Amino acid sequence: MSPPLSTGPDAGSPTGRPSDGAGSPFTRRTPRIVAAARLRRRRERDATGRFLAEGPQAVREALSSGAAREVFATAEVGRRHPELLTLAGQQQVPVSAVTDDAVAALAETVAPQGVVALCRRVDWRLAELVAAPLRLVAVLAEIRDPGNAGTVLRTADAAGADAVVFAGAAVDPYNGKCVRASAGSLFHLPVARADSAAAVAGLRAAGLRILAATGGGEADLDELLDAGGLTTPTAWLFGSEAHGLPADLLDTADARVRVPIHGRAESLNLGAAAAVCLYASARALRQREQLG
Amino acid sequence: MSPPLSTGPDAGSPTGRPSDGAGSPFTRRTPRIVAAARLRRRRERDATGRFLAEGPQAVREALSSGAAREVFATAEVGRRHPELLTLAGQQQVPVSAVTDDAVAALAETVAPQGVVALCRRVDWRLAELVAAPLRLVAVLAEIRDPGNAGTVLRTADAAGADAVVFAGAAVDPYNGKCVRASAGSLFHLPVARADSAAAVAGLRAAGLRILAATGGGEADLDELLDAGGLTTPTAWLFGSEAHGLPADLLDTADARVRVPIHGRAESLNLGAAAAVCLYASARALRQREQLG
Repeated sequence: MSPPLSTGPDAGSPTGRPSDGAGSPFTRRTPRIVAAARLRRRRERDATGRFLAEGPQAVREALSSGAAREVFATAEVGRRHPELLTLAGQQQVPVSAVTDDAVAALAETVAPQGVVALCRRVDWRLAELVAAPLRLVAVLAEIRDPGNAGTVLRTADAAGADAVVFAGAAVDPYNGKCVRASAGSLFHLPVARADSAAAVAGLRAAGLRILAATGGGEADLDELLDAGGLTTPTAWLFGSEAHGLPADLLDTADARVRVPIHGRAESLNLGAAAAVCLYASARALRQREQLG
Repeated sequence: MSPPLSTGPDAGSPTGRPSDGAGSPFTRRTPRIVAAARLRRRRERDATGRFLAEGPQAVREALSSGAAREVFATAEVGRRHPELLTLAGQQQVPVSAVTDDAVAALAETVAPQGVVALCRRVDWRLAELVAAPLRLVAVLAEIRDPGNAGTVLRTADAAGADAVVFAGAAVDPYNGKCVRASAGSLFHLPVARADSAAAVAGLRAAGLRILAATGGGEADLDELLDAGGLTTPTAWLFGSEAHGLPADLLDTADARVRVPIHGRAESLNLGAAAAVCLYASARALRQREQLG
């Protein structure tokens, strides 16, 4: 759906300098910008297999991972983040000079910092994902809040997870807010979208124990740790903060695990609960490996 | 600064029914609502020692903790959450019937769910706080984002922390967004505001080890756990996601601790890092107690 990428005279050159010789920078009315801005909508992302990543950190990760296809940058970015243009040059990704106004049309944040990458989605299929050895996987089941989903993706990356699955009616991982909350992690590890039941079946067939994180779980995380219950490959299921995990997923899990609440809080928020679970697994798995 | 609380005929009665006999419900123009709505500003909160808590959960916790002084509720709330009115009656807290429009004037969220409590601040002084035995304390140093601060407060409560200190130029704990993000935890455990250096000195004098959570820390959290470094009373210092901890606080800590990053993420977000640190301490302290 996007028009073919035409490159300016300097775009894609080793210096990666924004094209400023060929004429004026792109504005919000330039057809290429108009087309790219449509990627703020899921339907357009699904139809084209492309998405946008905004801000210097996300653009850097998009370039490093090979996902970036074109970078739109203001002149200011060339002065403040010359390393981005160098990286684009090294990766032979064209850089197009754009106005602040064009960036505002592409970006979703109030202060988009002048740079947006148009990226190609890398959609892992579940079958591909489980073909590799897996020790730790996070499954985001029906999590519709893009900020929460992106945060858990970032935490899973930090904890050394091998993959993240967006399951069922979870938010589109390429949603702009999810990309931002992931702080680059979307570009770091395999991300698949799958039906929830298929994800559980596939991960279990791959030898992972399926643990559902839920406030009402019968197993206490600390007791599970004490019993050595986290030393084998594990897939954690996380549900939405508002609705929790669907009953059929709770039923299908090998155990339902609660993070202990020692004080008077009713619950942890999703990001905190996922961090405690994923880091408990990471530590147990690494201790096991060091012993073995 | 708030006008004295006049109670309707039913307000404060054992049934706690909203006052609907004395006339019309309060609107956004009723002087009492106009005065209460000013508490959305920090200056007014500081001048009056009062603040607002919105939504059924926060109002319930405000009532249970004794912080609520008056409850503003729509007729719909009386039907959907009769237990709130019963609780208000038990606590002899007057309930005033208000219009949706009045709730909108008091609340900060788009869907405030029809109920707001006017609360009295309980300001703990550092000296009072350290007079009790402390095992685990979270210090939010210069954290200006109210959502992040409230989230860490909630996590500290869940992990069984004894107190939380908002230090230096941290956000006002009674900021509406912070109150909401704390999900009631503001009402569960002692919260003090203090100068950062004074907080560290006071907590150290009370026998706590001061650990600064920082991505650049020389001590790895897992190695610290292996070495038994979290089995003594601990105060964790957390800084803002954007700026981290100030250099003088990093210097004054007994150790600077990093949550290990096993994958390719640059860092964890504040809420995730605090959850991992606080739960690591909670587990180590409890294991120690069970052994001792």
